Formats: sequence, C-alpha cells, structure tokens
Amino acid sequence: MKIWRVDLSNHKVAQEEVPEKYQPLGGRALTSQVIYDEVDPTIHPLSDENKLVFAPGLLSGTRAPSSGRISVGSVSPLTKGIKESNSGGTASQDLAKLGVKALIVEGSSEIDNLVLVIDKDGLRLEKDESLKGLGNYDVGDKLRNKYGDSVTVVSIGPAGEYKMTAASIAVTDTDDRPVRAFGRGGLGAVMGAKGLKAIVINDEGSSGVNLQNEDAFKEASRKFSKIILGHPVSGEALRTYGTAVLINILNEAGGLPTKNFRTGRFDTADKTSGETMTETIKERGGKPSHACHPGCIMGCSNVYHDENGEYLTAGLEYETIWAFGAQCEIDDLDYIAYFDRYCDDIGLDTIETGVSFSVYMETDFMEFGDKEEVKRIFDEEIRSGTPLGQIIGSGADNIGRVFGIDRVPTVKGQSIPAYDPRAVKGVGVTYATSTQGADHTAGYSVTANILKVGGEIDPLKKEGQVDLSRDLQVATAAIDTTGLCLFVAFAVLDNEDALPSIVDMINAQYGTELNVDDVSKLGKQILKIEREFNEKAGFTKAHDRLPKFFKSEKLPPHNVNFDLEDDKLDETYKF
Amino acid sequence: MKIWRVDLSNHKVAQEEVPEKYQPLGGRALTSQVIYDEVDPTIHPLSDENKLVFAPGLLSGTRAPSSGRISVGSVSPLTKGIKESNSGGTASQDLAKLGVKALIVEGSSEIDNLVLVIDKDGLRLEKDESLKGLGNYDVGDKLRNKYGDSVTVVSIGPAGEYKMTAASIAVTDTDDRPVRAFGRGGLGAVMGAKGLKAIVINDEGSSGVNLQNEDAFKEASRKFSKIILGHPVSGEALRTYGTAVLINILNEAGGLPTKNFRTGRFDTADKTSGETMTETIKERGGKPSHACHPGCIMGCSNVYHDENGEYLTAGLEYETIWAFGAQCEIDDLDYIAYFDRYCDDIGLDTIETGVSFSVYMETDFMEFGDKEEVKRIFDEEIRSGTPLGQIIGSGADNIGRVFGIDRVPTVKGQSIPAYDPRAVKGVGVTYATSTQGADHTAGYSVTANILKVGGEIDPLKKEGQVDLSRDLQVATAAIDTTGLCLFVAFAVLDNEDALPSIVDMINAQYGTELNVDDVSKLGKQILKIEREFNEKAGFTKAHDRLPKFFKSEKLPPHNVNFDLEDDKLDETYKF
Repeated sequence: MKIWRVDLSNHKVAQEEVPEKYQPLGGRALTSQVIYDEVDPTIHPLSDENKLVFAPGLLSGTRAPSSGRISVGSVSPLTKGIKESNSGGTASQDLAKLGVKALIVEGSSEIDNLVLVIDKDGLRLEKDESLKGLGNYDVGDKLRNKYGDSVTVVSIGPAGEYKMTAASIAVTDTDDRPVRAFGRGGLGAVMGAKGLKAIVINDEGSSGVNLQNEDAFKEASRKFSKIILGHPVSGEALRTYGTAVLINILNEAGGLPTKNFRTGRFDTADKTSGETMTETIKERGGKPSHACHPGCIMGCSNVYHDENGEYLTAGLEYETIWAFGAQCEIDDLDYIAYFDRYCDDIGLDTIETGVSFSVYMETDFMEFGDKEEVKRIFDEEIRSGTPLGQIIGSGADNIGRVFGIDRVPTVKGQSIPAYDPRAVKGVGVTYATSTQGADHTAGYSVTANILKVGGEIDPLKKEGQVDLSRDLQVATAAIDTTGLCLFVAFAVLDNEDALPSIVDMINAQYGTELNVDDVSKLGKQILKIEREFNEKAGFTKAHDRLPKFFKSEKLPPHNVNFDLEDDKLDETYKF
Repeated sequence: MKIWRVDLSNHKVAQEEVPEKYQPLGGRALTSQVIYDEVDPTIHPLSDENKLVFAPGLLSGTRAPSSGRISVGSVSPLTKGIKESNSGGTASQDLAKLGVKALIVEGSSEIDNLVLVIDKDGLRLEKDESLKGLGNYDVGDKLRNKYGDSVTVVSIGPAGEYKMTAASIAVTDTDDRPVRAFGRGGLGAVMGAKGLKAIVINDEGSSGVNLQNEDAFKEASRKFSKIILGHPVSGEALRTYGTAVLINILNEAGGLPTKNFRTGRFDTADKTSGETMTETIKERGGKPSHACHPGCIMGCSNVYHDENGEYLTAGLEYETIWAFGAQCEIDDLDYIAYFDRYCDDIGLDTIETGVSFSVYMETDFMEFGDKEEVKRIFDEEIRSGTPLGQIIGSGADNIGRVFGIDRVPTVKGQSIPAYDPRAVKGVGVTYATSTQGADHTAGYSVTANILKVGGEIDPLKKEGQVDLSRDLQVATAAIDTTGLCLFVAFAVLDNEDALPSIVDMINAQYGTELNVDDVSKLGKQILKIEREFNEKAGFTKAHDRLPKFFKSEKLPPHNVNFDLEDDKLDETYKF
C-alpha cells in the first residue's frame, strides 16, 4: 500500500512509501497520526495549511463483515480542534483495494471545482466548471456519466463551496446515492476552501486486498459474522427498524431531547419512531433495511419513499429524525425525510443543522415546530447562500453568538446530539470530554445506560459513568481504526469472543501477532495524540464541560440535572 | 464610599460597606478584582451569572486634571474572557461624588427596558417601556426630560437590546450627548441580556469627594497639569487635531492598515486625516477641540457638523476614522462621521463594527469601498436587527465563522485596531498577549515605536518590543485604576516628575503613603488576576497569538511580517 498525496496549491500528485510507523495504523489511528505529524494545531482550519486525510480501516476491502467504514482527519472549522469524521458508503473498500493506505489532500487551489480522479493508474486532478453550485445528487450523476457507473463519488454540495462550518462531505452508497457522509465537524468547508469539489474513485482493475493467511481470515470472519448476527441489536433491531428504533426507547427513558433540550420526552415522538418509519416505508414500497456498503450484514440503513411512492431519501437515521424532529418540535416524518434529503444534497451535517434550527427557534425570527419555515430556509436561504443561509449553515454555536442566545447545546463548538446528557449521564461524560467535541459515537455510553448492552449502569446516576465513557472512548478509537462499523460494538461488548475474532482477522490479513491488549493500547494512543493536538490548539479542561444549563436546569420527566463534578470529568482522560 | 449593588433577578438594591481589600482599589483594579472574586470564569457571558461592575477611578470626582475615566468590568461576549472597558463622559465624576466606590449590576430581569436611577438617596429600579428600541440619542432626551437636564445617562441602544456581541454602552458627555462609550468587548449585549436599558446618574446634592490633605492635593494637581500641558502630544497635538492626528502619521509610517490589513498605506488617507477633519470642522462651525468631561485639560474630542452646518457627531476618533476609512477603503469623512454617529446611537463599538464590515467585504456580498452599502446596512439591517444586521453586529470573528473567511484580524475574538502589528511591532505584542483581546489601549507601544515618546524603539524590528509592551501593559493597568485619561501617559513617559505627582494626588486624597513602586506593583497585580481568570476560562498561550496571516504575509510598503517568535511573546507576562 502507498500514501497517495495531492497538493492543490501546485496541483502535484504523488504516491509515497508508507513510513514504518504508519504500517500498523488505519482509519482514525492513521488520520489522527498524520494530522498530528503534519499540521500545526494553531492554523486557521480554512487556510491552505490544513489537510484532509482519508484512510480506509485496517480491514476495509476484505470480506470482514461490515468493514467498509472510512475516516477523514483534519482540523475542524467547527471545533477548531483535531477531527476524525467517519463514513460508510463504498469509498473505504475501493480505496483499500486500490492500495491506498491514506489519501492526503493538502494546500488549496486558486481555481475551484476541481475533481480528483483516483484509479489503478494513480491520481490526477481535473477541472469541471459545470459542477459549480451543484448538489451532491447532481454531482454524482454527472461524474458517473463521465467516469463510469461504478465509481464511488466523494463530494461536497453548495454548503461546502460556501464554506459553511456545518458542511459535510458526501460519500455514495451501494445504490450510488450520496446518502453517506463525513458528517460532523464541518470538513466539507475545508474541502470547499481547498477548491476540491469531488473525488472520484474507480477500483476497476485494482489488485484488491492481500491476505497473509486466507484460511485463518475466513475462519475468524465467519465466527465474527455469527456473533454479530446473534446479537439482538446488531442482528435484529437495526435491520428491522434502523437506528430510529431508538426514538421510542429514548423517549420512554426520558432522554429524548425535546424543544432544544427543555424536556426528555416528546409527546408525539411515536409519529417519528422507527416503528412508524418502517411501516411507512413498507406501505410506500421503500426498503426498511439496506446496506450502505457491500458486505454489511447489519443493514441499518433504509430507503424512504414519499407519499407518491417515489424515492425521497435513504439512510434516514435516528439522530437526523431527532434533530429535525423532537429537538425542533416537529413530528412530521415526511418533512424530516425531506430535510434529510436536503442536507445530503446540499452537503450539511444533519445533526448540526437540526440543532442550528432549534437554536434559531430561540430567536424572535422563528417558532418551534414551524416546519414550513425550515423548508423555506432550506429552499430559499441555504441553497443560495444568503446571509441567513450562511448563519444556519454555520452551526449552532455561531447562531448563538450572532443572535445573543445563551441556550446553545454544544461542546467545543459542536452540537450535542440526540441523547440528553442529564438522563443518559454516561454519554454526557463523552460529550464533555471527547477530543471531537460533542459526539455520541466517540463513546456511546447509551449501551450500558439504556440498552443494557455490556452491563447496566443507571443512566440517571453519576456513579460509574466516567469509567464507562473512558472504556468506550478507548474501544471506539480502536474500532474506528479497523474500518468496522461502530455497531459491531454491541456484540463486542456482550460477547467475549468478538474482540479476539477481530484481532484474529487483522493478524490473518497482515501476518501480525497482535493480541487484545494491543487494541486497548492503540485506542489510548489515539486519544492521547488527539488530546495533545487539542492542547496545542488551545484547549484546556475548561473546554471539557457541558454548557451550564445542563447543570442548572432539571430535565423532565425525571427532573435530573448533570451533576458530575468537574474533577470527576477530568479523570476521564487519566489512563 | 459604598459598594452599590442591584440584582435584576429580584429587583433588589443594596448599599454595602467597602471590604478592606477593595479600599485601595478603583477603576480597572476594582472591576477586575470584583469580577475575579464574584464571577465564575466558565459562565456564558449573556447568562444571568455574569455581572457588570462600574467603578470610577481613584481620582475621579476630584479636580485632578483629566481624571474622569470610568471602568466597567465583566465577562466579554466577544472574547469570553475578563473585560475592562473604559469610558470618558461624566459618569465617573458623578458616581464618585455620590460616594459610589463601585456599582455592581447582577442577575437578569424577566422584564426589559429597566432604568436604574442613582442619586443622593440611593438606587432604584424603574421601568420605561417607551425606551424600547430607541437609540442612545433619544434615550438620553427622554431620560433628561424625566429626571432632569443635568443627569448623566449610561445606556444601550438597539444593538445592546439585540445582544449583538459588538454592542457598546454609551455614556453622555459634557454636552449631554451619548458620544462616549464603553466600546470594546460587547458589554452592551451583557446589559441588554440583563434587561437594563439605562442608568441615570444624578449627582445633585451629593457630598462630593473628600480630600484628606487639600493643600497637598492642589499642589500635586497643579504640578501635574503643568506637565501634561507642557508635552507636545497631550498639550498641543491632541487639542489641535484630535486623535485623528495619527492618520497621516501612521500612513507615513506605513502602519495604517488598509483594505483589511493588506497594505500599510492608504493612498487617499489625507482626505480622512486630522488636518482635513479640523479644517472641515472649522469651516462648518463645529468644535475642533472639546472636553469629554469637566476638568479635562487635553480636549482631544471634537464636534463635527455636516455640510449644512448642523450637528452630526462628536468625539470622532482616529480609530473610528480608520475602521470605516482605510480599513474599508472609504475616504469620505462625511460618511465616516455618519457611521460614527450611527454607532453611537445604535450602540455599537466603532472599531469592531468597522472591522466587521471590512471582513464582510471579503465575501461576495460586498465590495471594499462601498460606502453606500455600509450606510444601507446600518439603516436597513442593523437598525431593525435583521439576520444580516445581527451578523454585522456580532463582530469580525463571527462574520469570519459564518462566511468561512480565514482573513480575520482578531485576537481572542476581538478586532485588531488601527495600527498594523507588522509595522508597529510593539503594539503587535500587546494585541497578542493582552488579557483584553486585541486592544491598542492595553499597552500603547505606538509611543516609543512611532511617536518617539518614552524612548525610541524601531517599529519594524522585533528587538525590545516585548519589554516595551510589558512595561506599558503594567503602567496602563495602573493608570486605568486612577481614573486618569490614558493620554496622560505621553507626559508620564517623558517626564519623570509626572508619576510622583499622580502618587502625591492619591496620597493627598486618601491619606495613604504610596510610592511610585506601588503603582507598578498594582499594575502587575491587576494583570495577574485578569490572566488567571482567563486561564480558568480556558485561555492558554495558544490564544496569545496573532492570526497567522500576519506572519505569512508581508506588509507593504516596508514588506515586513510579524516575526516575533512565540516563546518571545510568552515572556510578556513574565514578571
């Protein structure tokens, strides 16, 4: 494998040997290490000194089940710290098969609308003025037309071109739709600032991934598949209802943030639940289950049709439904699906954008629940990048600053997602302390707090939450290195044979002799350098805190506040 | 003297004894100490946990020349750190005469448009719905009508009510005009968030300031006056041309930031110079010199009339002329005067707002030099608080975030003022390291760099700048404690008898036995607690840096960059 590099400042491309220290790394471990090694933490995230580092996971491109996740590393315009954003879709497997250990995009171009084409012959930059201002759906159509039906397209929509700080980078899925995304952290703005509109990946004729010990790999992979499919969450619930299964669960638990985190229960939540969604999808001829990349055996994605039975969106997720739903007091699933489609197309993170709207609803300009106004703002303001469109696209933190709103649910500039930290305290610890800003996927304590996976820790009490979050943050960093979907964690937490199978797969692929302890060491090492980077960027423990209102305001129905002491939070990164 | 306190959450007022440790403090020393003692550094600046602490200087209310400056302390919505903002006008002397050691405004009211009335009988809160949305000129007229012609009015305009982060707090001058301001740091938004529209101060019947040794005071005061009047800057230049005398000086020195800090020279700067302004003022029957408070012997202020000879604005300053002038490539003094008037009325900091426009001019929405569009945005957007108005009023840093602009001249979220740090390196050190964010007044190294006051240090070289800035930051903190106008520093730096006279005045007033060393100790102590507060708020040395483009881009005409090493900057606060 090689490091592939493109410098947009001079349009130079290169393929470099992989330095020995990068050999055992993949995914997040590699993206964070390259950012740590090559980027000054004090740069402006939109300057040409920032980089985007794409890295497939260690197991990506193999037949390991659900191993098609890819990481992108950068300095985030939203958090101003180090960022690893993670996506499904087909990019990871394609890059791995082409022998791309990491793709480093650096510099910035004087001209915009560049397309980076990656295939078995290497990398080349092309220019395509016709892509200017296009949404991700049209970009994909145009590029497939030009470069072939089977290419993967990684692209930004207008939001990225406008350098909106909530901009995402879209990745096409198995149906060639731009419904997978490097959503969090605003990295679409970084790509836009560099003048890069899209990356086209064509794995035709690639040599594929080499396995040192094919038989051992097959055996471990088979074992691991069985474990995943045998777990009630990864083997059943996700396939049946998608991640939206969580709407009713969190609502029941009193932890579904409603009306910008005013209560933990949304009266009409069921109208937006996974059960309702699945029924609606079935009635209209969509797909209640769908795999975002080949070889995914969990199939948590879906294809959602509109009232006329026409395709509307795909990959409608719990966090998206929550962000535009309960958080904004909107209980109309068709509108939410439309907003999801809009975000995918224009290239905005659904979580950040939904929370942004909810904070905007705190101003005199908008009421909670006004779905028509959300639609109008998407159609008329964000699409054409008006000043209001720019504000909404700049994330909740900026909206708070611009309109003088102090009720802003963000940590390190990034919006808190769909689990109230007062009623799911373990995930509150993750929000506060993660190197990534508020991010449920960085240490998904919802497992033991709510789902009774990997043990049981009362979500309303502070006991045990720091240890829980720490363990999960370490494990997650490691999983994000493998290319495995984070949802394998449900099985890993409940079945002690799961982690050894993962290690066996890696060893069989690379001829290494890792053991399970090495996985934990790797996770810690990743967090350590990410944290060190953030410290150099100016972060202190004062940034490892939730907004004050989570301490001072009690959340109905359980009337709980976030009562973990600051010094307890500071123990999260003691390892 | 007493500490006067109002809690807006419950509308309670109180007069408290001055704790012993506060006895020797005044102005900035006292505001910063109270904020340090009473406010949690991690609060949201617009929450009800923030406070506004107004404190007259130690010498305010006496006949000490030019001693009418007042400090307000708070946590800044712009910098998110501790803030001391300083104003002229008649508030300081009135409060001192009423025996107000400090006025602490805390909590926040459910109802808006409150007026705090302060007179010899104490404090009381009143409500005046008719003030809602009014500009500072109208607010003053209404309140003088109600409370008497001679009251001082401290108020916010619509910008403060909208909680715009660049909002100022206006203070009326000797002509009852709201042309003096606590400009920097967005403290108008804090006042707006508290629901307080105005403070009315009536010193009628006050007991005045007591002097322990009247003769000694008179003698020291006379001596000090003579020193000030004998200095070419404080005794002559400021009175003749106002602070705008600096336009031609800085332009000549190649340090007048032009077109958002792209060059250090503005071709048509002379159309906006102090010389041109003075001539224009004289022609139209305005006042080229004016004192902002009784007893000011420097008279740097002015009254500017429009083409028809009608009053337009007063206190037209160098930094304002620069911010809307060279920085935005506008060379029309009448327009600039109109913008100054507008900022005074609506309640916005002229520096932050001018720089905000210049950053907005970096977007596709506006061209540099478009004075008509600046006027339109003031009239149509900012006045009514439209989304675009809110953005412009939120300061340059937020505009950069919202529009994805990386050329943003701010430090700690506050705009860099009218001296390019590459061509006036001493002030660059101050911008980078001050506890206040970018602020020329925090350590005005322009003295030795450009004006050859207090020595001579080559502005283009890095040698000596850290020591210069450190000394001036310490001295400034001390001067901001006395209530003396910072402009006395010109004389203090050049005449070794000046500082002893100040100490003599303080000793004569309070019966203390301070010496000149105590002044320096006090200055250091202030900076120390401000810095400690900021550290708790999450600031690190990574925040003591200029934006990167000052390092990477060379400034014409001298083609210099800001080349002071980071570790050198970190020595500024070593004392």
